[in-house]
Amino acid sequence: MNSPTAKTKVAIIGATGYTAIELIKILLRHPHVEIVAATTRQEDAPSISSIHPSLTGRLNLNCELLDPAAIAAKADVAFACLPHVASMESIPLLLAEGLKVIDLSADYRLIDPDIYEQWYGHVHTDPTRLGTIVYGLPELYRKQIPNQNLIANPGCYTSTAILGITPLLCSGFLSPKGIIIDGKSGVSGAGRTPKLGTLFAECNESLTAYSVGNHRHTPEIDQVLSDISGTETEVVFTPHLIPMDRGLLCSIYAPAIKETTEQELMQVYRDYYQGDHFIRIVDHLPRTKDVAHTNFCDITVRLSRGTIQIFSALDNLIKGASGVAVQNFNLMCGYNETTGLTDLY
Amino acid sequence: MNSPTAKTKVAIIGATGYTAIELIKILLRHPHVEIVAATTRQEDAPSISSIHPSLTGRLNLNCELLDPAAIAAKADVAFACLPHVASMESIPLLLAEGLKVIDLSADYRLIDPDIYEQWYGHVHTDPTRLGTIVYGLPELYRKQIPNQNLIANPGCYTSTAILGITPLLCSGFLSPKGIIIDGKSGVSGAGRTPKLGTLFAECNESLTAYSVGNHRHTPEIDQVLSDISGTETEVVFTPHLIPMDRGLLCSIYAPAIKETTEQELMQVYRDYYQGDHFIRIVDHLPRTKDVAHTNFCDITVRLSRGTIQIFSALDNLIKGASGVAVQNFNLMCGYNETTGLTDLY
Amino acid sequence: MNSPTAKTKVAIIGATGYTAIELIKILLRHPHVEIVAATTRQEDAPSISSIHPSLTGRLNLNCELLDPAAIAAKADVAFACLPHVASMESIPLLLAEGLKVIDLSADYRLIDPDIYEQWYGHVHTDPTRLGTIVYGLPELYRKQIPNQNLIANPGCYTSTAILGITPLLCSGFLSPKGIIIDGKSGVSGAGRTPKLGTLFAECNESLTAYSVGNHRHTPEIDQVLSDISGTETEVVFTPHLIPMDRGLLCSIYAPAIKETTEQELMQVYRDYYQGDHFIRIVDHLPRTKDVAHTNFCDITVRLSRGTIQIFSALDNLIKGASGVAVQNFNLMCGYNETTGLTDLY
Amino acid sequence: MNSPTAKTKVAIIGATGYTAIELIKILLRHPHVEIVAATTRQEDAPSISSIHPSLTGRLNLNCELLDPAAIAAKADVAFACLPHVASMESIPLLLAEGLKVIDLSADYRLIDPDIYEQWYGHVHTDPTRLGTIVYGLPELYRKQIPNQNLIANPGCYTSTAILGITPLLCSGFLSPKGIIIDGKSGVSGAGRTPKLGTLFAECNESLTAYSVGNHRHTPEIDQVLSDISGTETEVVFTPHLIPMDRGLLCSIYAPAIKETTEQELMQVYRDYYQGDHFIRIVDHLPRTKDVAHTNFCDITVRLSRGTIQIFSALDNLIKGASGVAVQNFNLMCGYNETTGLTDLY
Repeated sequence: MNSPTAKTKVAIIGATGYTAIELIKILLRHPHVEIVAATTRQEDAPSISSIHPSLTGRLNLNCELLDPAAIAAKADVAFACLPHVASMESIPLLLAEGLKVIDLSADYRLIDPDIYEQWYGHVHTDPTRLGTIVYGLPELYRKQIPNQNLIANPGCYTSTAILGITPLLCSGFLSPKGIIIDGKSGVSGAGRTPKLGTLFAECNESLTAYSVGNHRHTPEIDQVLSDISGTETEVVFTPHLIPMDRGLLCSIYAPAIKETTEQELMQVYRDYYQGDHFIRIVDHLPRTKDVAHTNFCDITVRLSRGTIQIFSALDNLIKGASGVAVQNFNLMCGYNETTGLTDLY
Repeated sequence: MNSPTAKTKVAIIGATGYTAIELIKILLRHPHVEIVAATTRQEDAPSISSIHPSLTGRLNLNCELLDPAAIAAKADVAFACLPHVASMESIPLLLAEGLKVIDLSADYRLIDPDIYEQWYGHVHTDPTRLGTIVYGLPELYRKQIPNQNLIANPGCYTSTAILGITPLLCSGFLSPKGIIIDGKSGVSGAGRTPKLGTLFAECNESLTAYSVGNHRHTPEIDQVLSDISGTETEVVFTPHLIPMDRGLLCSIYAPAIKETTEQELMQVYRDYYQGDHFIRIVDHLPRTKDVAHTNFCDITVRLSRGTIQIFSALDNLIKGASGVAVQNFNLMCGYNETTGLTDLY
Repeated sequence: MNSPTAKTKVAIIGATGYTAIELIKILLRHPHVEIVAATTRQEDAPSISSIHPSLTGRLNLNCELLDPAAIAAKADVAFACLPHVASMESIPLLLAEGLKVIDLSADYRLIDPDIYEQWYGHVHTDPTRLGTIVYGLPELYRKQIPNQNLIANPGCYTSTAILGITPLLCSGFLSPKGIIIDGKSGVSGAGRTPKLGTLFAECNESLTAYSVGNHRHTPEIDQVLSDISGTETEVVFTPHLIPMDRGLLCSIYAPAIKETTEQELMQVYRDYYQGDHFIRIVDHLPRTKDVAHTNFCDITVRLSRGTIQIFSALDNLIKGASGVAVQNFNLMCGYNETTGLTDLY
Repeated sequence: MNSPTAKTKVAIIGATGYTAIELIKILLRHPHVEIVAATTRQEDAPSISSIHPSLTGRLNLNCELLDPAAIAAKADVAFACLPHVASMESIPLLLAEGLKVIDLSADYRLIDPDIYEQWYGHVHTDPTRLGTIVYGLPELYRKQIPNQNLIANPGCYTSTAILGITPLLCSGFLSPKGIIIDGKSGVSGAGRTPKLGTLFAECNESLTAYSVGNHRHTPEIDQVLSDISGTETEVVFTPHLIPMDRGLLCSIYAPAIKETTEQELMQVYRDYYQGDHFIRIVDHLPRTKDVAHTNFCDITVRLSRGTIQIFSALDNLIKGASGVAVQNFNLMCGYNETTGLTDLY
């Protein structure tokens, strides 16, 4: 455990996107963190508040180009908020300089470089490290996170789905094949790079499924559920774009493979997440609004006509990205896991 | 077939809600319709444009209290846009006066009064008529609609789901038990009566499932699919409230129960809806925005990991309510089915 | 007047944006129009329905590169939906081929090429034609539009503001200097080219002024109001971006420069727009929702503490762009001005 | 100054609305506050998390009926989140029990009971206390707030407008008559009571002015500006409803009555708000999104064609209501003014 007065110096690698700004806002209220650097690919060293005007008067920092040695001279921990591919190019350099790294991209989540190549369309350039990296979902891998130098921070759909499915899969209520995950995400999940499909006038007042059968979070969900349940698991994951900024709901469907009741299923969840501060097993149907801007994941379960229905909701940018990154940071650095994350909003 | 110059006189029974205003807008452009009456429960005979300001300068009509004889003296056809229960109280009186009626409520959709009572919590007051009423989904029951005096206009979720499921269910690709329907609807589907749950500040930037296991469209879907397929069908239907005005998407999941391909499944749809003007079998994933303010239902199908995924989208107020009501009206009155409904927007 | 059965053949020049799709939807229901060509800069001749999936099954047309002679061989009238600069490069060629042209860009709206250069940052390449082109706001310039070969279709803010201000300015209730126009527009007004500022996650749940003091519609408003009132007019125009797809409201403020009453002011409007089908002088405060998807402009006026407040609302894509373009088309071609535009929605 | 470890016990009077939930969320992170009571008019003592599900697991408290003596037995300070009229009925009783009270309603904001009656349509039942109550806008009345027993917390539009206008009015750049305030607010400002006008399907994709000439914040703005400037001030205030949850922007227009420059005007603001933590004088045009969920008010000024344009933005529920209430609480109780309010989000 760090001394209560010690501040850990952190750098934000890739500071222009939505996960970066959320991360910065969380870290600004973290009592043991000092943000000492932020990087962009812009050469003119813009101030962080010119990129994110909401930071005006809150963080006085000019962005810099990514120079691993320069970052390591200032910081102890780096949060990598880079796109995939860019991430696996930079992270080995940051690690070589002695930094601890939390990678918010997908580059170190999959164990198998062939699966990475198949789903991401790029040869993995750091394949030997794959398979050694802990998947940073603290509710499942809490004990393995401390003392790691690199954590693969989970995807937003994956966390939502996995947190919803794991308790029932591990206790034998669900078959490992054919679990239906109907994912529904706010538009911020698609990132801050201008694209036709995420223009306001395209996705407002609209609703559509996308990436059916080929969304990249699919192998990630399969891999983690297989690992945690000890059985090869294969899900049917279908994401939808919802006209709202933030919030993610997975509606999960599977036949009950043994006789049960809603009460029993609810108890499985309460037992499984006993002591997990950020998981709320709720009686009502979760609303994304109730978890927006928080690090909570709200879960409930229903049983109807023999089909188990799990509803799992979180904020895609917080518990689905930057909040869990800070959970991982806390665990890596010896702080209390919830530091800086309670009563976020 | 009516003479091309004849105008049918119609009354809107219950003119204050969202289905009524949509209906009026469609009928205003219908070349063979004259709107001669509109009723409300307000005693002060408000002008229709004071209730719906968008009608200013477009329809000059004062609302009246519902008096079946007075309506019958003016009109040939009544569109009943009343809430359930109110509808079954008024419709027998309208029929007795010789009016043809299209009922947009749920009161005459179910065959079995016990099922009505079970799901709606009211004893049906016109049970002998139940079971004799044609369900007004023209794509399935087109031949039975002409010459009827009363048509039960379908629910919005039910049309979307049934149009998506029928072709594959009837051709043996789906088991009749356990089809998963993940329904997603814009907020206008919840009606115009002020309620906490449909306030802007409650449902904007939010997303939730509701009525899980007990939504009233469930027995309606079961009944129609059972009838059309000849096999007792039981679905798992779960609606969600989406922060948008209008649009409805059903994402439908079921295991393929015989070997098939996406190409074959697509062909089943193209064959089944051959000649159906308002059903568009599309290669892309349907967006509700592309059907908003139209009478189209866009459908596609995908096959992934052995699971068939059907995506069916329509405008809940048009093809899901008032547009299909006008299709039924056209068929009942001998007009071309598409009159007044093409190029709506 | 054209013969009632004649169809005019039209081409859409620049078919990928929001004004183009709105135009196509209006023209599809126009009884005297056939759309024979649509152009894009894409070389692969995409079908129009691949660009605008809402047109699936409604318009069967492959886009082509812009070749003025080829267009003229097929079409009588061209609607130019190009960005500024591109428009003034192509329109002389289209005119030279004998086409009538309605230009939805800003390139032919201003009389003075120096003012064009000052506000648009480009030298005007067709300056001799400037000053001879009729400004296509039919409510003001109706008599001059027929028989023109080129019409400059107005901007969305300009139409809204000018229609709101003209009656009182021309009857001496307003000073020509310092009229405050607080403009508020839905995001579709910013076009379909991906930009950071129009991403859903940037402008949803947000509100801001933009282009304060330098919005390009300013000189256009000044010019038209000066022309119509015979007095040099200079307004203070401030646009705001509103998190909605479509709709535009101008709230206009100016001191009353002579003693008056709300009743008198309302009468000025009713008199001025007597017979103008698309202008609705309403007693209530206009809502953009009531004019969305229509060609109406709703206007009211209030007098409070000596300040006249005018509220003028329209749909930026219809009455603010493509609807008024069809009004102009009708006038140019000898059809009834309202053909294809009544009961749009 | 309280001892750093002392916790002040607070009660939330009227806990069901939007200002109450925002207040609770702020107070939950306030290091010196314990929430000991919450009242509703519901007789069945609902848990606070059943009313506000976002509080699940965060605040374990059953609501109670309002009994001033019972509240005083537990709490030191009461935040009154009641509607007007209800507020002035309860507050004298709470004060009589020795509680300090921060009133978030309008009942104690106006000095003159006749003006209250004129604008609110009710006789004021506690008129002798009026005129003695400090208006709780700390940036203007900071020195008068400590040691008060009752503070009248300002309205959301009023704070936004007053903070924007005061510096220039007090330094003689603006005439006290005829300042135009075009206010634009998110829908949460209209409260949580179900009403037709605030239904999602009514105000989504819509935009309208409302209460033109008679909004109740008008006399409040006049009164405070007159007091602070020493000159009788009368504004023209026009509110608009914007389709977003939260955020409020006032666009303020007035002729510059002396020669000036934007630079000089900006400097006036920087000087006036020197040391005010929650006022950010920004160079860019403020976006409500950048202040949403924070206690900041972002202000800038422009000069165009002789007209001064001030843009002032805040979160209507935080800096416009519950955040400023906590500022007042801090000042009343001797805590640092910013405690619990920095880095809210």
